[in-house]
Amino acid sequence: MDEITAEPGAGRRQRGEGRGAAARRASRSGGGAGPAMPYITRKIKAYEVLDEEGLELIERNADIVLEEIGIEFRDDAEALELWKNAGADVRGQRVHFPKGLCRELLKTAPSEFTWHARNPERSVRIGGNATVFAPVYGSPFVRDLEGVRRYATLEDFRNFVKLAYMAPSIHSSGGTVCEPVDIPVNKRHLDMVYSHIKYSDKPFMGSVTAPERAEDSVAMAKLVFGDEFVENNCVMLNLINANSPMVFDETMLGASKVYARHNQASVISPFILSGAMSPVTVAGTLTQILAEVLAGASFTQLIRKGAPVLFGTFAASISMQSGAPTFGTPEPALVSYGAAQLARRMGLPFRTGGSLCASKVPDAQAAHESANTLNMTLLAGANFVLHAAGWLEGGLAACYEKFMIDQDQLGMMQKMAEGVDLSESGQAMDAIREVGPGAHYLGCAHTQANFQTAFYRSALADNNSFEQWEIEGRKRIEDRANALCRSWLDSYEAPALDPAIDEALLAYIADRKNSMADAFT
Amino acid sequence: MDEITAEPGAGRRQRGEGRGAAARRASRSGGGAGPAMPYITRKIKAYEVLDEEGLELIERNADIVLEEIGIEFRDDAEALELWKNAGADVRGQRVHFPKGLCRELLKTAPSEFTWHARNPERSVRIGGNATVFAPVYGSPFVRDLEGVRRYATLEDFRNFVKLAYMAPSIHSSGGTVCEPVDIPVNKRHLDMVYSHIKYSDKPFMGSVTAPERAEDSVAMAKLVFGDEFVENNCVMLNLINANSPMVFDETMLGASKVYARHNQASVISPFILSGAMSPVTVAGTLTQILAEVLAGASFTQLIRKGAPVLFGTFAASISMQSGAPTFGTPEPALVSYGAAQLARRMGLPFRTGGSLCASKVPDAQAAHESANTLNMTLLAGANFVLHAAGWLEGGLAACYEKFMIDQDQLGMMQKMAEGVDLSESGQAMDAIREVGPGAHYLGCAHTQANFQTAFYRSALADNNSFEQWEIEGRKRIEDRANALCRSWLDSYEAPALDPAIDEALLAYIADRKNSMADAFT
Repeated sequence: MDEITAEPGAGRRQRGEGRGAAARRASRSGGGAGPAMPYITRKIKAYEVLDEEGLELIERNADIVLEEIGIEFRDDAEALELWKNAGADVRGQRVHFPKGLCRELLKTAPSEFTWHARNPERSVRIGGNATVFAPVYGSPFVRDLEGVRRYATLEDFRNFVKLAYMAPSIHSSGGTVCEPVDIPVNKRHLDMVYSHIKYSDKPFMGSVTAPERAEDSVAMAKLVFGDEFVENNCVMLNLINANSPMVFDETMLGASKVYARHNQASVISPFILSGAMSPVTVAGTLTQILAEVLAGASFTQLIRKGAPVLFGTFAASISMQSGAPTFGTPEPALVSYGAAQLARRMGLPFRTGGSLCASKVPDAQAAHESANTLNMTLLAGANFVLHAAGWLEGGLAACYEKFMIDQDQLGMMQKMAEGVDLSESGQAMDAIREVGPGAHYLGCAHTQANFQTAFYRSALADNNSFEQWEIEGRKRIEDRANALCRSWLDSYEAPALDPAIDEALLAYIADRKNSMADAFT
Repeated sequence: MDEITAEPGAGRRQRGEGRGAAARRASRSGGGAGPAMPYITRKIKAYEVLDEEGLELIERNADIVLEEIGIEFRDDAEALELWKNAGADVRGQRVHFPKGLCRELLKTAPSEFTWHARNPERSVRIGGNATVFAPVYGSPFVRDLEGVRRYATLEDFRNFVKLAYMAPSIHSSGGTVCEPVDIPVNKRHLDMVYSHIKYSDKPFMGSVTAPERAEDSVAMAKLVFGDEFVENNCVMLNLINANSPMVFDETMLGASKVYARHNQASVISPFILSGAMSPVTVAGTLTQILAEVLAGASFTQLIRKGAPVLFGTFAASISMQSGAPTFGTPEPALVSYGAAQLARRMGLPFRTGGSLCASKVPDAQAAHESANTLNMTLLAGANFVLHAAGWLEGGLAACYEKFMIDQDQLGMMQKMAEGVDLSESGQAMDAIREVGPGAHYLGCAHTQANFQTAFYRSALADNNSFEQWEIEGRKRIEDRANALCRSWLDSYEAPALDPAIDEALLAYIADRKNSMADAFT
């Protein structure tokens, strides 16, 4: 397996280098058949599970939820005041929305926008036919390269940022790729945002755990991109979970308000474990998701018209025997397919899916659950995909080996998204004529001309004979993933960062850290 | 994990028992959320990767292949004579088809038919919205329950038939579930067909390795179903591989002729490792597949008008570095999606997919490759799915543990195929009204009424906490699959078989075996 030691496509790329060289290097790397692309442009169509009648039914039901039941905004008075002024019927913290109000407000939200990276070549599109993959988010634990499950540290955080930067199939270094629990809880967002800027030049996410941490994220982004650029462009996506069912809490609303005010994107994501946070049915869950997103997304437009906002969905179920979350099962897939359709009708970019699983180890359970989720993610036409690599154990642990396995699968999704090439070369009639019945295509001119890019090439799959596999030590894929991960981390080189910007960031962080006592809860 | 010791849904079912009781038992079994169904009726639509223009382009190109290049029929004179009489231009063994000839001949082939089981409750539909899963086919090796990879035996064969019989999500006990290499090669087909009849009452496949073995399969089927029934109904599906590119060999044609004469189904399957047996492109591969199927399938109609025939596709690629077959990659998925569309336009039932992989062990590689293939299989709308469970190592080994893992995944596909329930209960508006913002759905009336069947319930996935998983011995899914497999085999009970039929079959086998010297190659 000479691919193990191959360098990844993106990691070695230097500023000023042409795309061609990087593409050739990525193609040699075994990290994927094609070059590292800033994001996927899907040429295949989206799969749909609901017809027009079904979609209208769910939209009608969501309107009923919004008007009759309402959504709670557990904020200071500001949010409720804004809703009152917008024409909603506010009773306590419960907001009841007249039919059509949310959709009317959402007319100012963009259906597509650019999420800027500090390296313009890595900026991505959010919406339309674009799909953007980002790593696991929020895990307090890691499963490390020794196979030990332990609390995550800032070093782990940096490692996952580096790996996401190096992986040709991952388009954003993400947000809270793991919780650096060795850093005080009120200060770690500063180290996280800094790590994204320092160790990667792909687009990143801001902190959402308190409004002042969102402000810090914006301030640091301004040191990189400039004040005016940030106020007029999206440089951060920010994960705003609904506290389902039908609640937005003060923390999430506080962060969302900060980001919307600064023109940064909110990913309004009902966090659904069906059976606990939503009904046990797909259609019922879709109705609730739609109502929650309509309320949360339109709220961003009350803060600032035109602020980018995504229709998000985190869909899983629970085991009705134990109450434990389950992943990769059919029902959440149907939910995500349906939610994607609702998002397209609403004209908002859509977030769902990833490589979700409940398994404690990167075994066949982890892979089946992840693959079921990921295949759905691509075919649903998701625009932004959090948890696309490294997620283990219901998200409780970020796993190095699984990260490597997942990024390989993400490369396959990119190839799948290219669809069928119907060009003259794609039709390959010359090859069929040249070879004819009973011969083989290995040496024909068309094969010779196309073999290097013909098929997705996995750096981790073992396709050798059983005998060769035995000679090489009977390795499982996680063994190969472990070796590849070590090799990537060993060969990591940071992208260039203007020393003045670096200094300004470090000064900002020092100043902010000095202003606070350490907090660990 | 109390599911480990649970009995499977189908295995314990006795003749004469009502479907309700069996359904309740299946639902308790942990083998799947729903009852054991004889086959899947898809309520979701098929996914398509080609538009009308693309489909027409490939059809035009296939017509060119058929007319200009031709297909070789390496048969005795009969096939060539039949083609001559039908109006084809026959040069040596190469048959050139005037435009439209194959499609004209195929007008007599049924678009949908019943594949009868000896237990009528297990008969399945082939075609339309039906999907039928069958186990791995043709493996010379097994990976056994001790983790040893060795040549397969008749005992293994019987075990896989028993497991397929017991699995609620598998609808046919298949054909050569593994090669019983302890039995002489010229006699083992008798033991294989007998095992299917004796140890299962699901529909099975006939032998195709020689015309006389096909005749034996038909003769044995007649002892079970009666002469007249067999001549007028399909009781066997039979795998007729094209020797791609563009060749049908004498063995396959010989078997196909026997089956077509007796009204049994041929699954005409180009066996494609793209890059070796077909061009390195998806569109080129589709063109060749279509030409091969048009020729092979229409040939069955020359033998007997109305004989059932399937559009088959076995799609994989090769590593262009090593020449080794690869599975679960994007390109073969695109091929299968496209072939399914071509089959539907042709009005023939379609075979593709399964749980294919190259891995030597049931690890995450095996699962990713299998899941990528299986998700495609369902969404492509495949009607008949060989290799749906147990396939390992590019098909070289049938694996017990993987069989159990796969059958669990097949249960998920069945649930997925049900699509979104838009009934009043599916909409769950009562639940949303009852629960309201900030509460949970666990105890609400709608959840209480629906929780038992709400979600697919895996018997193998571990969804417990990390701590519970540690207490239970840090088991991987293959450990749990191993235990479940042993438990199923221990609790296996054969379906009833009329002793007179059993006796007649054994007499037939003894007679045939006595008439032949043992052959081992």
